[in-house]
Amino acid sequence: MSKYWSPLTASLVPYVPGEQPKDKTYIKLNTNENPYPPSPKVIEAIKAAAGDDLRLYPDPTCESLIQAAADYYKLPASRVFAGNGSDEILAFAFAAFFDPAKTILYPDITYSFYKVYAKLYGLQSELIPLDESFTIHPADYARENGGVILPNPNAPTAKLMSLDAIRIVLDANPNQAVIIDEAYIDFGGESAVSLIAEYPNLLVVQTLSKSRSLAGLRVGFAFGSEELIEGLNRIKNSFNSYTIDRLALAGAVAAFEDDAYFRETTEKVIRTRDRVAGELTALGFTVTDSKTNFVFASYPDKPASSIFQQLRDKGVLVRYFAQPRIEEYLRISIGTDEEMDAFLQAVKEIVGK
Amino acid sequence: MSKYWSPLTASLVPYVPGEQPKDKTYIKLNTNENPYPPSPKVIEAIKAAAGDDLRLYPDPTCESLIQAAADYYKLPASRVFAGNGSDEILAFAFAAFFDPAKTILYPDITYSFYKVYAKLYGLQSELIPLDESFTIHPADYARENGGVILPNPNAPTAKLMSLDAIRIVLDANPNQAVIIDEAYIDFGGESAVSLIAEYPNLLVVQTLSKSRSLAGLRVGFAFGSEELIEGLNRIKNSFNSYTIDRLALAGAVAAFEDDAYFRETTEKVIRTRDRVAGELTALGFTVTDSKTNFVFASYPDKPASSIFQQLRDKGVLVRYFAQPRIEEYLRISIGTDEEMDAFLQAVKEIVGK
Repeated sequence: MSKYWSPLTASLVPYVPGEQPKDKTYIKLNTNENPYPPSPKVIEAIKAAAGDDLRLYPDPTCESLIQAAADYYKLPASRVFAGNGSDEILAFAFAAFFDPAKTILYPDITYSFYKVYAKLYGLQSELIPLDESFTIHPADYARENGGVILPNPNAPTAKLMSLDAIRIVLDANPNQAVIIDEAYIDFGGESAVSLIAEYPNLLVVQTLSKSRSLAGLRVGFAFGSEELIEGLNRIKNSFNSYTIDRLALAGAVAAFEDDAYFRETTEKVIRTRDRVAGELTALGFTVTDSKTNFVFASYPDKPASSIFQQLRDKGVLVRYFAQPRIEEYLRISIGTDEEMDAFLQAVKEIVGK
Repeated sequence: MSKYWSPLTASLVPYVPGEQPKDKTYIKLNTNENPYPPSPKVIEAIKAAAGDDLRLYPDPTCESLIQAAADYYKLPASRVFAGNGSDEILAFAFAAFFDPAKTILYPDITYSFYKVYAKLYGLQSELIPLDESFTIHPADYARENGGVILPNPNAPTAKLMSLDAIRIVLDANPNQAVIIDEAYIDFGGESAVSLIAEYPNLLVVQTLSKSRSLAGLRVGFAFGSEELIEGLNRIKNSFNSYTIDRLALAGAVAAFEDDAYFRETTEKVIRTRDRVAGELTALGFTVTDSKTNFVFASYPDKPASSIFQQLRDKGVLVRYFAQPRIEEYLRISIGTDEEMDAFLQAVKEIVGK
């Protein structure tokens, strides 16, 4: 505590990202990074942008990037927003659409940054329990509220909601913003972007960090009605005119241009994920039906915390959440086939098979 | 207005950055960019970082960059914070240190983003008038308040405060954070970073956008006591874990390594500025004593708005503020000698000399 801190600062409980240890080289399956590099066209575009023009401010409206994302989804540019990673956009969206006088809704087991944003903006939250199989029931979100945020697929459970289920949430909340956080949508889900024309209350948030292999570039998007996009722009332009630098703008535009590469690497991750899920199941693990680039798995005969620690000792980092209801699960990012073979070998040694 | 907007969103009056017109090529003297390119070592470092590792998240602690800035100022790393441009850091600082229950102080003529941040965080502001010569009087800041922010040099007036004057403000406010915004300090001022060890209430904010020719990279710094740096980190880690991408981190580290280039280009800007100020004075302009990379000038016989428009018609963009007390002034960024010769020629034609 410091006497210079505002009451807000004193009250915060900041988010803690997955560890990035420097003590030795690990097989890093703990932060859901893509094991494949970004498209060579992205690298090329960044190198071309790394020149004298860096002395100039970037385009504050991100016009070329917004157009690229709009073209990809066949939307007008007025329905697209770009930001410094989807985390920044989620923070803007909490400020833009959620009212401190009301209570917002999100699942009890979900991306743990949501409760941090709620605290940052002084919002009341009601956590809606997932059922025993970690399923989100859309009817649970048909109650008095000041806004809803749902990740789809959910993290860390990896489970996907159907667009029909999302429609139920949207229909039940015509006067509140409903944010669908689609960080992992490209690994087997169907995007709710297709619903934007029908639902002015729908904001879909995406990122280049996962399926486009660009976690290091910090670019995310939001798609929604013009009034929602304008709301995000009002917050952004009260905070920082230039959130995306010239290099990230150039690289991100190129990422949308190389669709073939995107499809190929995404397919590889999906194939590896399905194989790993199958092998873990064969070893006796309970594995949720993943539509993401990670699997969420529990072993009946050994505490997850102990498997986590033993994997770490063997040089494999996964994510463990010491949190009620999921303290017997591990979240394992999908790496290359070679990395996952090493992981599976380590698991077999740990569970004695 | 939209029913989906929070009361905050509805209340905002966002900042408007200097125009970036696309209708033709201008001599761009309106956004205080550096006319010289960044150091070749910066470009090299960025190209080296543009590779497969972009699939991985950046270091959320910005350790290497913070160490580079700390080494430059011979400070411990615990007294340094890095962010996505100094605008982002200023926004974090308003949230971190200023209390909505109290009133913050800043000059009536200053960086116009301050009042936007105040609105974003629900802060009361008292605007302290500069005197007739646009001078800040430190004794004016010795009154009940919830925090002080002063740019030094001030913008758009270009005038510098001495460290002795800053000490008076710091001594008068032992229980409040005092933020000194040093975006332009390298063009002839003495940084208040030297006072940090003495004043736990002092936060100094700097940027690579101006003197390091990296407006397009979006990197800024704050220097202060450990408790102030921790306050900034609490806000940042409740907002976005990864605000600076891998390319910007690499380029920014290199910017600190090439001190010779930095000194050379900064000296060139200072020499050109002093020449332009002299020539404008000789033409009959009133010019403030600039310690920045722009000059602030007024002509007695012709409205500034008209000179602004005529310059624009001649292909020279400068900044005009339709704002009481400074509506007869123009802010003119310092370009290359050739650009400034073209500007001076256009001015001579407009004022008929």
